[in-house]
Amino acid sequence: MTATSPLVLACPAASSSTDRVQLGHGSGGKMSAALLRERFLPHLGNPYLLRLADAAVLQVPAGEVAVSTDTFVVSPLEFPGGSIGSLAVHGTLNDLAMMGARPLCLTAGFVLEEGLSLDLLDRIIRAMAEAGRAAGVPIVAGDTKVVERGKADGVFINTTGVGLLGDGFRPAPDRARPGDVVVLSAPIGRHGMAIMAAREGIAFDAQITSDSADLGPLVECLRIAVGDSVHTLRDPTRGGLATTLNEIAAASRVGLLIEEAALPVPDAVAGACEMLGLDPLYVANEGVLVAFVAPDAAPGAVAALRAHPLGRDAVILGYARAAHPGLVELRTRIGGSRIVDQLPGEQLPRIC
Amino acid sequence: MTATSPLVLACPAASSSTDRVQLGHGSGGKMSAALLRERFLPHLGNPYLLRLADAAVLQVPAGEVAVSTDTFVVSPLEFPGGSIGSLAVHGTLNDLAMMGARPLCLTAGFVLEEGLSLDLLDRIIRAMAEAGRAAGVPIVAGDTKVVERGKADGVFINTTGVGLLGDGFRPAPDRARPGDVVVLSAPIGRHGMAIMAAREGIAFDAQITSDSADLGPLVECLRIAVGDSVHTLRDPTRGGLATTLNEIAAASRVGLLIEEAALPVPDAVAGACEMLGLDPLYVANEGVLVAFVAPDAAPGAVAALRAHPLGRDAVILGYARAAHPGLVELRTRIGGSRIVDQLPGEQLPRIC
Repeated sequence: MTATSPLVLACPAASSSTDRVQLGHGSGGKMSAALLRERFLPHLGNPYLLRLADAAVLQVPAGEVAVSTDTFVVSPLEFPGGSIGSLAVHGTLNDLAMMGARPLCLTAGFVLEEGLSLDLLDRIIRAMAEAGRAAGVPIVAGDTKVVERGKADGVFINTTGVGLLGDGFRPAPDRARPGDVVVLSAPIGRHGMAIMAAREGIAFDAQITSDSADLGPLVECLRIAVGDSVHTLRDPTRGGLATTLNEIAAASRVGLLIEEAALPVPDAVAGACEMLGLDPLYVANEGVLVAFVAPDAAPGAVAALRAHPLGRDAVILGYARAAHPGLVELRTRIGGSRIVDQLPGEQLPRIC
Repeated sequence: MTATSPLVLACPAASSSTDRVQLGHGSGGKMSAALLRERFLPHLGNPYLLRLADAAVLQVPAGEVAVSTDTFVVSPLEFPGGSIGSLAVHGTLNDLAMMGARPLCLTAGFVLEEGLSLDLLDRIIRAMAEAGRAAGVPIVAGDTKVVERGKADGVFINTTGVGLLGDGFRPAPDRARPGDVVVLSAPIGRHGMAIMAAREGIAFDAQITSDSADLGPLVECLRIAVGDSVHTLRDPTRGGLATTLNEIAAASRVGLLIEEAALPVPDAVAGACEMLGLDPLYVANEGVLVAFVAPDAAPGAVAALRAHPLGRDAVILGYARAAHPGLVELRTRIGGSRIVDQLPGEQLPRIC
């Protein structure tokens, strides 16, 4: 952290302004260069980024690449279990992982609000760097803009990822087939409810921490165990599991039958949802995947997920069928049945 | 455009809310899907994007790819000569072009402010689509977030580009050499002053339009004419030509000698800068490149640039030398000389 201090130490008389983002940090001139050198490069520096060129140059083998982009506007910027920095890395890595791609690199584009605490920015950048390092993925290109106070909300981060696709493993939202078993890797609702609690200052009986995590290693376990028997992979983020299942049902033209009794919802999440009148099926997750797996490979898929810490509570939720294509039917605990629709409007804004 | 109308037409009674972005458009649920289907896909749709997967999949040959990212926060969102939509496409295409890369694809990440006019959003998306189509580059992946009124400023757009690098043409900021001729493709200052005039409602004697343009074809002219004799290419955007020249001088450890008399500044820009006390050397451009070219290739480079409409006013500005590495010296019209430094703080915020 000492590498990030000179700007502050050099101007003790102006410390009230120099410990916050100023418009000049977005000028493209000396202050921009100082911000980059003192705040970003000490944490994110790697040979690609340190070249400070207009673009990073990477070697790729012939084949197919996956490209994914996501902008993060989560509020608050820090929450139990993570921050916008770690979330921005995990979110895009997971989008690549759901396509069966292995990440090659990430880019990061920042919108900073004038007045943002540089200490907070430091923590966010450090969280990004740590998440990238843990995944072994460099952030190869970046951009920083500054807008006037009141024209953004602290910081927004876009991350875009490039990944490499190999042969024989090509999960896709339109590849689910009748008979496929629906496997869920972990209990639902933690990320959305952690954000909700942090934002509204609600103290639930037990603290809920975000499940934000890099799902790449978990997908690798699946790939090794059952390979292309995994037809579809999705991480149910915004809109929750209900929205993701509806999207898959529509894209693959299959019906889905899901058992409510099988659906894992942590007690703290269930309690918080009940208190706030929310349905955990629509609450965002950032460390959960749903896999559609050929029936004969389902036991192997569940075992492979359970062998990894992120999938130790993996369960079979139900199955896909030819009947009622596009519809998601939930068989309730009391033996009834209801259609689970997509979220019609807004449930929890700015959870990612 | 008819494909974008159903949302409005279906709810005539609620037209005051349905012609503006609402928080529900960022939910990930039905309203998000409708916004995507009705506002984005009619203009931007292509086989990659229409698959609606977590990532786009593209074929690449073995070799090197360039990756660049840029977030656009320009204010106002529309200005003479362009909008944030066209600028977001040109800006990232140009970053790829400056590395000698041919663009393969772009991604687009949007932050929308609640209350943004959907008509304005339509125009912005259409401008992006047109700029992408003109360059022959598809927008293969996208993301949309919505934040509450007062937490952004209309719309911010991140674009990230992937390009392919070929053999034998590898301009880079650290490859300028003593003796290289500094060539400028077009007069400076138009973009920054067009934004300034539009934002402040200043009526100059003549309207100044932004020079925002895709520089890829101009770079292609250079490549064909003189190939790897082009050592360095940069587009002087934020911070203007002065900042770009300083960055190249520092990265390549050369001194630069620039002739003020050779510097092309349109009369309208010069007049506006004088009125506002600004130096055109620090004003942003979005359709100008500066090339460092081996001396014997300089006449060919200038001729190649002049053969293209974007480079018809190309000039030789000066040259690089071994003396005073890192310094940019301007020889003034009256025979004096001054050091041109990087912009110390902020001149014109939010010009890109």
